[in-house]
Amino acid sequence: MPVNLPAPNPAELFPIAGVRIGVTEAGIRKANRKDLTVVLIDEGASVSGVFTQNRFCAAPVQICREHLAGDQGIRAMVINTGNANAGTGADGLARAQQTCVAMASRQGFTAQQVLPFSTGVIMETLPVDRIEAGLDAAIADAKSDNWLRAAEAIMTTDTAPKAFGTQVMLDGALVSITGISKGAGMIRPNMATMLGFMATDACVAPSLMKQLALELAEGSFNRVTVDGDTSTNDSFVVIATNKAAHKVIDSLSSPAGQALKAAMLGVAQKLAQAIVRDGEGATKFIAIKVEDGQTQAECRQVAYAIAHSPLVKTAFFASDPNLGRILAAVGYAGITDLDQTGIHLYLDDVHVAVKGGRNPAYREEDGQRVMKQSEITVRVLLGRGTAADTVWTCDLSHEYVTINADYRS
Amino acid sequence: MPVNLPAPNPAELFPIAGVRIGVTEAGIRKANRKDLTVVLIDEGASVSGVFTQNRFCAAPVQICREHLAGDQGIRAMVINTGNANAGTGADGLARAQQTCVAMASRQGFTAQQVLPFSTGVIMETLPVDRIEAGLDAAIADAKSDNWLRAAEAIMTTDTAPKAFGTQVMLDGALVSITGISKGAGMIRPNMATMLGFMATDACVAPSLMKQLALELAEGSFNRVTVDGDTSTNDSFVVIATNKAAHKVIDSLSSPAGQALKAAMLGVAQKLAQAIVRDGEGATKFIAIKVEDGQTQAECRQVAYAIAHSPLVKTAFFASDPNLGRILAAVGYAGITDLDQTGIHLYLDDVHVAVKGGRNPAYREEDGQRVMKQSEITVRVLLGRGTAADTVWTCDLSHEYVTINADYRS
Repeated sequence: MPVNLPAPNPAELFPIAGVRIGVTEAGIRKANRKDLTVVLIDEGASVSGVFTQNRFCAAPVQICREHLAGDQGIRAMVINTGNANAGTGADGLARAQQTCVAMASRQGFTAQQVLPFSTGVIMETLPVDRIEAGLDAAIADAKSDNWLRAAEAIMTTDTAPKAFGTQVMLDGALVSITGISKGAGMIRPNMATMLGFMATDACVAPSLMKQLALELAEGSFNRVTVDGDTSTNDSFVVIATNKAAHKVIDSLSSPAGQALKAAMLGVAQKLAQAIVRDGEGATKFIAIKVEDGQTQAECRQVAYAIAHSPLVKTAFFASDPNLGRILAAVGYAGITDLDQTGIHLYLDDVHVAVKGGRNPAYREEDGQRVMKQSEITVRVLLGRGTAADTVWTCDLSHEYVTINADYRS
Repeated sequence: MPVNLPAPNPAELFPIAGVRIGVTEAGIRKANRKDLTVVLIDEGASVSGVFTQNRFCAAPVQICREHLAGDQGIRAMVINTGNANAGTGADGLARAQQTCVAMASRQGFTAQQVLPFSTGVIMETLPVDRIEAGLDAAIADAKSDNWLRAAEAIMTTDTAPKAFGTQVMLDGALVSITGISKGAGMIRPNMATMLGFMATDACVAPSLMKQLALELAEGSFNRVTVDGDTSTNDSFVVIATNKAAHKVIDSLSSPAGQALKAAMLGVAQKLAQAIVRDGEGATKFIAIKVEDGQTQAECRQVAYAIAHSPLVKTAFFASDPNLGRILAAVGYAGITDLDQTGIHLYLDDVHVAVKGGRNPAYREEDGQRVMKQSEITVRVLLGRGTAADTVWTCDLSHEYVTINADYRS
């Protein structure tokens, strides 16, 4: 059961003019399961993406980078589950490329105009014949209100679909934004999550798209972690179809640029947090805020050290206010000149540690009360500056071990 | 149940001339439990230690560093379990100091000649009155053949005592080496483990002791990890009582220096590996060897990324050869110019991945066979140099979650 993850609200999953989505069962790993999704994009859209920093990045990630750099205009995406096509060498690259060729030949554009995405088990051969065999059915299924079905079709160990949308007025025109994501384990996105897709009908100058995608990822997917394992396949793609009736946005700092970015960031954060709420075995959603640091980077480093500590995560699972474990993680986060006597620790509103030691006023029952909640904020004050950062994570439960000990069997 | 951890062999736990050990039940956290150990050291011994790099280092660690730097000659150690005296601020420092004063006043030496050690729960007040009350009984118990009892008395979540010894001929004199360690969780020593103590009657120039302790820690405790959590209390102390009948060793590269170091390193590695074998919830002992790197540091970085991946660790627990997870960890280890097409992966003798892709000759049943073993070697060839390093770790099981979700209750 995800932690306070709202079911997608169909009324908020706005069709985006210029984007149609189709889904089918291609039998890639298991039968009777929607596992192939195509996204058809009208000519004239601006598309950008950010991808995993994992050096063992999957074949489709390598192809996506090439095709986006090729600048021929992206016209379609093909997304399969059941197989990550990662750790598959030159053969994997050829199979990802073959997927693009098969899609392009059916639609009359070039292979360079197709982006492939794969997610699932690593180091197994992609059954590209099954993808090819499924393409026609997926294309025939394509329509603009298929976002929810796509959110379902890209799930792997996810227990619930993740889809959010919003609308915003830009220069008097109503603009829609809709996005989906998937992911539950192997989650410590470093540029993007397993898979995240967002589209808007807003008009955005192509030259701005890379910056927009990066800034959205930085404020959302790059702030979540389940298990600290950065995936081989992380991909986050932003599509602006340029169909809305407003002037093209040519700067993210213009009023319209700021409004669009804020609206899109809201959706991106919900999509990213949804992954943590559905984190493998998660029973709690935890925001870790680190403040008063010298730099944002060191605040993030401390937040991730806390978020990745198995001891901290199991204490949250147990609702045990064994909060010294948080201080220990702060201490080993890698700030070599950190002075422990400047540290304060809060659990929600409870002031646990003062100047590196236990707060004399702290009572175990107050810590216990907060630890029992399903949503918890950990706040660490470093006492050495004015920078801050936040990371979202979940606890580590028996269910995490069960899921990952059984995933392939 | 620890993984292939031999019970201490009393015949190998050699008394060390100049060292006497006493143990008692001081009721520090629970009744009827040996929780206080004193080590009495004859005048003239050379003592050195290495301590955690955690910036939230415990009060006793801070006092140890001061007293070792004070150079008055260390005459005693006082070790308690049940309370780590970490995250306790100025009050914790005063209590650690009080422990030293209490010990020194009973034995007629200065507080600066005492080293205090604490291990247990973090951020709780050290009951120094109970330590004081227990000291007389512990001192009365002191004898030279008490190593096994001390190994038992320093246990916390350990399920078995860890003690090893050996003897070596130096310049015609028989020299004895005996050591003990403790630790099972919060284990990613960064300079030393939770607690490790070694003594020898060898004659070692005091000026060499720091280098000897560092080199021993580097080759043993600094190569193990259970959960990646660097403790606040890691301490590793080496004592040379200078009682043996050989010429003082004044260089570790002399024949006698090399012989002593090799013998001590053998014991230190057994002590360090014992911690992994008894790692919380461990069912497997895994050596991770990374070779053909540009530097030893990058090899270690990759080995630790693999060793800390919850996905890799749960796959080992499940005996599931889901080996793409290892490649993913190699990819996110932080070598930014790593070329995946140069990577080879072996599981014991089984060649799993060739040039970044699955070995065509690799059969799942071969991977399965190795994964079922209780001792496994993972070998990664980076294909970019001649450096190598090794890290020892264990798997991540349901039992780990159980232990750490229940530790304080």
